Amino acid sequence: MSGPQTPEPALSVQRDSPTGTRDEDTTNGTQHSHRMLNFSDALLSIIATVMILPVTHTEISPEQQFDKSIQRLLATRIAVYLMTFLIVTVAWAAHTRLFQVVGKIDDTLALLNLACMMTITFLPFTFSLMVTFPEVPLGIFLFCMCVITIGAVQIRCSAHRGLYRQHILHIVLRGPALCFLAAGFSLFFYPASYLLMATVIFLPYVSKAAGWCRDRLVGRQAPEAHSVEFFTFDLQEPLSKERVEAFSDGVYAIVATLLILDICEDNIPDAKDVEERFHGSLVAALSVYGPQFLAYFGSFATVGLLWFAHHSLFLHVRKATQSMGLLNTLSLAFVGGLPLAYQQTSAFARRPHDELERVRVSCAIIFFASIFQFAMWTVALLHEAETLQPSARFGGREHAFMFAKLALYPCASLLAFTSTCFLSGFSTAIFHLMQIAVPFAFLLLRLLVRLALALLRALRGLARPTRGTGEDPQAPLLAAPC
Amino acid sequence: MSGPQTPEPALSVQRDSPTGTRDEDTTNGTQHSHRMLNFSDALLSIIATVMILPVTHTEISPEQQFDKSIQRLLATRIAVYLMTFLIVTVAWAAHTRLFQVVGKIDDTLALLNLACMMTITFLPFTFSLMVTFPEVPLGIFLFCMCVITIGAVQIRCSAHRGLYRQHILHIVLRGPALCFLAAGFSLFFYPASYLLMATVIFLPYVSKAAGWCRDRLVGRQAPEAHSVEFFTFDLQEPLSKERVEAFSDGVYAIVATLLILDICEDNIPDAKDVEERFHGSLVAALSVYGPQFLAYFGSFATVGLLWFAHHSLFLHVRKATQSMGLLNTLSLAFVGGLPLAYQQTSAFARRPHDELERVRVSCAIIFFASIFQFAMWTVALLHEAETLQPSARFGGREHAFMFAKLALYPCASLLAFTSTCFLSGFSTAIFHLMQIAVPFAFLLLRLLVRLALALLRALRGLARPTRGTGEDPQAPLLAAPC
Repeated sequence: MSGPQTPEPALSVQRDSPTGTRDEDTTNGTQHSHRMLNFSDALLSIIATVMILPVTHTEISPEQQFDKSIQRLLATRIAVYLMTFLIVTVAWAAHTRLFQVVGKIDDTLALLNLACMMTITFLPFTFSLMVTFPEVPLGIFLFCMCVITIGAVQIRCSAHRGLYRQHILHIVLRGPALCFLAAGFSLFFYPASYLLMATVIFLPYVSKAAGWCRDRLVGRQAPEAHSVEFFTFDLQEPLSKERVEAFSDGVYAIVATLLILDICEDNIPDAKDVEERFHGSLVAALSVYGPQFLAYFGSFATVGLLWFAHHSLFLHVRKATQSMGLLNTLSLAFVGGLPLAYQQTSAFARRPHDELERVRVSCAIIFFASIFQFAMWTVALLHEAETLQPSARFGGREHAFMFAKLALYPCASLLAFTSTCFLSGFSTAIFHLMQIAVPFAFLLLRLLVRLALALLRALRGLARPTRGTGEDPQAPLLAAPC
Repeated sequence: MSGPQTPEPALSVQRDSPTGTRDEDTTNGTQHSHRMLNFSDALLSIIATVMILPVTHTEISPEQQFDKSIQRLLATRIAVYLMTFLIVTVAWAAHTRLFQVVGKIDDTLALLNLACMMTITFLPFTFSLMVTFPEVPLGIFLFCMCVITIGAVQIRCSAHRGLYRQHILHIVLRGPALCFLAAGFSLFFYPASYLLMATVIFLPYVSKAAGWCRDRLVGRQAPEAHSVEFFTFDLQEPLSKERVEAFSDGVYAIVATLLILDICEDNIPDAKDVEERFHGSLVAALSVYGPQFLAYFGSFATVGLLWFAHHSLFLHVRKATQSMGLLNTLSLAFVGGLPLAYQQTSAFARRPHDELERVRVSCAIIFFASIFQFAMWTVALLHEAETLQPSARFGGREHAFMFAKLALYPCASLLAFTSTCFLSGFSTAIFHLMQIAVPFAFLLLRLLVRLALALLRALRGLARPTRGTGEDPQAPLLAAPC
């Protein structure tokens, strides 16, 4: 019962041969693209998450309350972060689809790809401009120029596969065309530009939703008579699983290390200061920064464990559908917010009067980051025959364990959030308890799941004396010898 | 004539199967390690390059000359960067060797690896402490604790392969044991600690050099009778080529985007400032930051093109030997310095009086980053039968082209450096000319090489009327129909 395999042997062969066995592949000037794609994934994941830094660097002096102006500043910076993240993810998806068709590359294509990457790295800056000066058309104009440049480069890339040119042109040109309109509007009526830009970002999802509605209304159309490889560039096709993994790995890696950047720069005490204020005791001087170190370790552990859950999930995933890709993006967007959450906790020591709000914000970010992972798992289960490996499906031996792994963080953060409502005085203690308890829970998870299953089985055995562990069709979950 | 293949089919199969075809691999609790390794590579490459940020953020006010105190500050920060880079690279090499033996992982191992990564991310901080307070033992002590923790985790990892335990323990324990000694010395005689730490860093290279000398003196010993896989963990074995690529990709990607971090945070003009100083003109306000943008594009283009040269080189490489790994590390260490070089150029506009030194420093960094790449190519050519694909060897059709690709940046930066000696007044102009000319040279390189070869062949034809293009054994370079 291995289910239908994804019919893309040609593509997987192209990506999966990085060892020294391809001797004569490079002789006709073309090369395998796997390294260029890895490099692009790394760049794009860094760019997507970079804009959380201005958010975490928002200085709130100890006297200031969390007042209107600070709130507005934070809100605009978070908006810039989310917009950047979404647009870079859209660009990444387009890049993935393009290079699912363009299998082999040559030097010109590699250089064009570099130019494309350079333009994409400029996008966060244009967003910052737009948010700081929403009424000045320059930001929109620069943004549209970037999108048009990227589109032009992609068209140049796709020209290498003359066969599918019409089809690729149609998909690649939509964004730049809309942006061209937006750039025009920006000169005299800027709200229209923003509307058009929003269309560019949400176009893939809108068209996906429209296609789904049409399918429901008029019945699913039969796939056209071409071979599968012809339409890999279609938006309805699943994304390449390896590239989803590579992009996610990049995001998790950069988010996990964002706080060490600040720590290495800001938390080295001044030599003169140590001599004067702490009588030469370096340990005393460093203990002032204690909360920052705790925040760093907490943030790293959470990001690391969320990566671990993601990694476990994708071990059992066969292919990533469009909706799983969307949920993955949303999860990653909240993962990018984790350094912010943990910087909040490092502020506990300095500003104890609003620690309740900070703990709640942190719990909420962790909850959303993990619940979208859980949703990905749920969506995968809906089409388990094509998306999951047999061992993770209902009744598979890893099913209960996967379930527990992915449910751990949503449950823990929800529990912490609700308990702060009743025990508001102990909110910091509750949060720190969660930080310490969850890694241990992950270590002991296999044991815990086995215990829980044994308990359930025993209860069921008491209720019904037929001892139907293996034979009971209503208890596939319990049948698993976890 | 395809040369001896690297005998590691088991390993390459383990890394090369990220598609949805392994259905029942995950059922016995073990998993393929490729994603964990990718994640580790990404983390390690970020940590290795992070410490260039304090160097680039060294503020030199326009009035200050490049005086002693600034020079000392810069020198210590650059030393911290280089030490961090080297130690993280050593840790990465140990990690690579360990997981060349440990093929399959389980959940415990994945979590232990995360703990190991977290400890490694803390290394840059301990280095900063050491350099700021060289006489306080705390920095050394923390550093040694980190190394011992990493060693302990690695031993725990290696325990999964009981068979090779003795051998792995011997190699993994050397570093922590030396560090334990260093931690002891730090309490009463700290210079000895530094000496021991230096030993930890250079141990692999020292033992390699010692082995080489012994081979020369007493003749090469016959390899022992065990299978090859037994001794993959040996320091003399080549590193996994994919992991060298993944680590390099990570370093290039983070270095290419380091400057955009600063740009997005610092170069958004203040709304009030624009109104008052620039009469509401955003373009005028942004033009103040012009040099920073130029610096960013220059830095990105150089890093991108160096990545391109590296990528082209590794397309033709079969396996990465120990000396190639060392040269790659040195090249990457200078690549990490490129943001510094280009921030120097953005200072031209503000402080024109010492632009000559800045241009020279930039040229030197580019020169060293590219000459080590070139050296890697030279070393690979020395053992071309085992390290290179046939098409890149002497006489191969890609040989001349590869040569030109890798020689372009060393030549251009050397030319720029020497021409600033004669035309010191035009140093900025020369540097900008190089920045613009080199990318175009890369685009036209294939054409240029073909022209040069045709010219050489014509000259040779004039000198000797035998027209020996294909038959001339003394001109393998010219024989290539590039």
